[in-house]
Amino acid sequence: MKIAFFGLGTMGLPMAINLVKAGHQVTGFDKSIEQTKRLVAAGGLTSTSTSPAASEADVVISMLPDDATTRAAIVESGVIAELAFGAIHINMGTVSVALSRELTQLHRQHYGHYVAAPVLGRVNAAEVGQLNILAAGAADALLTIKPLFEVLGQRIWHFGEKPEQANVAKLAANFMIGSAIATMGEAVTLAAAYGVSKIDFMELVTSTVFDAPAYRNYGHAIARESFEPPGFKLALGLKDVKLAMSAAEEVNVPLLMASVLRDAHIDSLAHGEGDMDWAALSRAAARRAGQA
Amino acid sequence: MKIAFFGLGTMGLPMAINLVKAGHQVTGFDKSIEQTKRLVAAGGLTSTSTSPAASEADVVISMLPDDATTRAAIVESGVIAELAFGAIHINMGTVSVALSRELTQLHRQHYGHYVAAPVLGRVNAAEVGQLNILAAGAADALLTIKPLFEVLGQRIWHFGEKPEQANVAKLAANFMIGSAIATMGEAVTLAAAYGVSKIDFMELVTSTVFDAPAYRNYGHAIARESFEPPGFKLALGLKDVKLAMSAAEEVNVPLLMASVLRDAHIDSLAHGEGDMDWAALSRAAARRAGQA
Amino acid sequence: MKIAFFGLGTMGLPMAINLVKAGHQVTGFDKSIEQTKRLVAAGGLTSTSTSPAASEADVVISMLPDDATTRAAIVESGVIAELAFGAIHINMGTVSVALSRELTQLHRQHYGHYVAAPVLGRVNAAEVGQLNILAAGAADALLTIKPLFEVLGQRIWHFGEKPEQANVAKLAANFMIGSAIATMGEAVTLAAAYGVSKIDFMELVTSTVFDAPAYRNYGHAIARESFEPPGFKLALGLKDVKLAMSAAEEVNVPLLMASVLRDAHIDSLAHGEGDMDWAALSRAAARRAGQA
Amino acid sequence: MKIAFFGLGTMGLPMAINLVKAGHQVTGFDKSIEQTKRLVAAGGLTSTSTSPAASEADVVISMLPDDATTRAAIVESGVIAELAFGAIHINMGTVSVALSRELTQLHRQHYGHYVAAPVLGRVNAAEVGQLNILAAGAADALLTIKPLFEVLGQRIWHFGEKPEQANVAKLAANFMIGSAIATMGEAVTLAAAYGVSKIDFMELVTSTVFDAPAYRNYGHAIARESFEPPGFKLALGLKDVKLAMSAAEEVNVPLLMASVLRDAHIDSLAHGEGDMDWAALSRAAARRAGQA
Repeated sequence: MKIAFFGLGTMGLPMAINLVKAGHQVTGFDKSIEQTKRLVAAGGLTSTSTSPAASEADVVISMLPDDATTRAAIVESGVIAELAFGAIHINMGTVSVALSRELTQLHRQHYGHYVAAPVLGRVNAAEVGQLNILAAGAADALLTIKPLFEVLGQRIWHFGEKPEQANVAKLAANFMIGSAIATMGEAVTLAAAYGVSKIDFMELVTSTVFDAPAYRNYGHAIARESFEPPGFKLALGLKDVKLAMSAAEEVNVPLLMASVLRDAHIDSLAHGEGDMDWAALSRAAARRAGQA
Repeated sequence: MKIAFFGLGTMGLPMAINLVKAGHQVTGFDKSIEQTKRLVAAGGLTSTSTSPAASEADVVISMLPDDATTRAAIVESGVIAELAFGAIHINMGTVSVALSRELTQLHRQHYGHYVAAPVLGRVNAAEVGQLNILAAGAADALLTIKPLFEVLGQRIWHFGEKPEQANVAKLAANFMIGSAIATMGEAVTLAAAYGVSKIDFMELVTSTVFDAPAYRNYGHAIARESFEPPGFKLALGLKDVKLAMSAAEEVNVPLLMASVLRDAHIDSLAHGEGDMDWAALSRAAARRAGQA
Repeated sequence: MKIAFFGLGTMGLPMAINLVKAGHQVTGFDKSIEQTKRLVAAGGLTSTSTSPAASEADVVISMLPDDATTRAAIVESGVIAELAFGAIHINMGTVSVALSRELTQLHRQHYGHYVAAPVLGRVNAAEVGQLNILAAGAADALLTIKPLFEVLGQRIWHFGEKPEQANVAKLAANFMIGSAIATMGEAVTLAAAYGVSKIDFMELVTSTVFDAPAYRNYGHAIARESFEPPGFKLALGLKDVKLAMSAAEEVNVPLLMASVLRDAHIDSLAHGEGDMDWAALSRAAARRAGQA
Repeated sequence: MKIAFFGLGTMGLPMAINLVKAGHQVTGFDKSIEQTKRLVAAGGLTSTSTSPAASEADVVISMLPDDATTRAAIVESGVIAELAFGAIHINMGTVSVALSRELTQLHRQHYGHYVAAPVLGRVNAAEVGQLNILAAGAADALLTIKPLFEVLGQRIWHFGEKPEQANVAKLAANFMIGSAIATMGEAVTLAAAYGVSKIDFMELVTSTVFDAPAYRNYGHAIARESFEPPGFKLALGLKDVKLAMSAAEEVNVPLLMASVLRDAHIDSLAHGEGDMDWAALSRAAARRAGQA
């Protein structure tokens, strides 16, 4: 297929390269010339204008960090208006339910299709095409793009026909990660106050009841107070928690744990920890107890 | 060794039987005659009086549900006073830090030793001697009882020389489980409000970032709203959360997630869910959103 | 002075009429023809177009319910662009810090002045010119409009030279009212659970430590469960709490009480109480305890 | 009447003296010899043994700081057992619902009466007999002691026939004060972050919607960061919040605002503020925002 790919960051670039390797014609766009060159070196294309790629694309994929950059690249740039009749936009970034609804509507007005397909998995999973893809959208559009998902992911999860359903699933999962981090932060603060080794405690729980990636990754950092360089920045964690809260508020769902979580993030920002790894959220718990 | 074993419940009985099978002389006590008979049928002993067993025991093991029953069986019964010089009491139940400190002191006064050794693992792990044992106490006492731990558990975790350190580790782990349940409850309530299948969502997270026993077990029940019969009662969950909060308060550690958690439990009790499985805590989140 | 007055609602109309009575030339605008007619009947003016009034005005006053209506009436309508050099816009509505900053900037670009002057007080205070006016803006602008404030209010409070400072003061005060309502809700739920009369309890506290308007007004409604017709709608309360939270987040201030408050509002919305009086927030507390 | 008065602290001494002045025979007891001497100087009595006073008393009044001291003075001392048939114990201290129930039962067993009568008001109100008395207990006992209440208080509030009902009312009122303090702490932290004067903001709210003693007293201290010497210690505030939470938990009432409040107190204790005035709770809010 002919693919216009927007967003060649740490996640987007390996995804785009995998699509090239699988035989697709991928024209990539990114604000970084370096990243764009890497795609070209791998056999991809680029252009100074998005117009030709957009008008010829069977599929547009966006993998951008937030609502603003996605809206800028796809809506304000005029890309949506240039797409051919029946083209499919797959938005794989983590965006708001509100943007997903807006894009669903806009594509419909231009006789195209919109699919939300945010992912679970980090760079290494993206590189080897082993992401978990959370997809929602019209059934026939999902069928058409199935070969692309099979290149990118180990498993495709369908959450419904409304694109925002995939966004909600992704936001709910990220909220759960944030909650796990905040909880670990409080638990190790308690343990440490009794002279229990944070590393031993975290090894216990991640070897037993919490033997899962989210706990091992963040737990390791929390126990060792190793927050730099960031894998995923705390400030981005706050962004996702707030997106989950907004999505929840729109349907009148109180999320009490998320509220506590949000306040802990703000506490961290007030103490200059926004650019540290998300695990640094544990410092808010330590601070409250006079440990930090 | 000669062992006096107090508490032959669903966890205690298989543990006592395993000790019998390993060649130890185990005299068991329980308010249930049925359970006591089962121990005897497996080769154990019992008695109408605790005195002879207590005075001859090398080791006393208690596996009782809470502070009150433990204090009744070991302190108020006079057992501590009857123990031989140098006897070791291993308390494997989940009790408060305060009781652990009190027992440490009492045993010291009677020239004995106190070891706290609560466990992680359910009945099936107890039956096959595959518990995780969280131990804290004097190093030489721990060395003496190592053979017993090797019968009961797959791994022994040492958390320090003060017995309450093991209790804190256990309570912190249980608080983490409660927090995970409450978080899952909120996350599936959010998902459901958007028409996302709770079962699909829970399968996603437990197949990926949260692929861990605590999430699989409770998540399965939450997604299916299957809360009876209880594996672990919600009211006992509240007990443990409160023990964690008390332990934390004693050392001036605020646990904000635990506070939210505690209130959700009370909400559940107010709605008659105390005897349901701990997973029923998710109903409080659903209720707030008008879903239950 | 020549005044263009936007927003002749329950608060705005009596304020505009008072300005007419004080001898000012007031041209009023509102989406309701009825309200506009009432102003004219009192000696005010109106017009089918805002242009002449805007271009001739010494002062523009807006008293609109939220950011969206204020932006529509003043910015999107082109009013700002039509104002004469040096004209002063007094925004007396409760709006966001963000909008106040945006308006400050826009007026500066058009060589005008922006003053934020939200008020404390209800309709009866507006009618008799006894509002408390929370003002912030450039000192000379404030001096110029002082005669107008003296017509409208019993006291003028200055909170600084940056208009948003007055908005923050107003939002912080409203957050405090919401917090008082939520707290009263919990306190009477506790009292009622012990068979203590809610009315007696509320009379006690409002006769003693909480002998203040916010407690008497809302406490009376809470104790009697009298939530309709609404004096101030619960959904508007949520709007204000969220504005306070946004203002706080922008400067990295965690507001934990506000977070609990926000979730209680969402709970109320999920149970169809958004159009009831703000006092109905107490029902969320009762519901959690199984009392409602 | 013949009165045995236990607890001659800052509140108890002026109360006891007022009873002496009103013509009653008051025998006072306190651990402080100084305070006891002051009572005697005012015409009261004392004794090295509580027995004669207890056995002759028509009424026993206790005004002690907490459950432990009250239980020690009245129960463990043997005083209850020594009381004459039909004697009335008026407990005017702020104690737990649980202790009130226990004392109700104990007095019934000894053919006496128990009335709970905690007070609202500070030392100056105690000195001039202008306390607000929150009373609950059997109607005839309340009638008998009415003359004493008329000496001590400006108004008597009846909350029911079960003594704990008065305790609940008192605890609910104190929880409301704590909540007001925590809310003020957050509100001024927000205001200060925008450069709004804390003193001006607090003057605004206490002159208008929050023109009440609880806000004026604590708000004054919060705005000026004046926390020493303490009027009422922060650590005692935590005690009362916890008593309210315990009373609520017993009847399955979740108090979410109280939970946030409790954690803020613990944060304050962790930072060495337990002996400061209750208003210092505002420092926890400031700390979270990086202001303290």
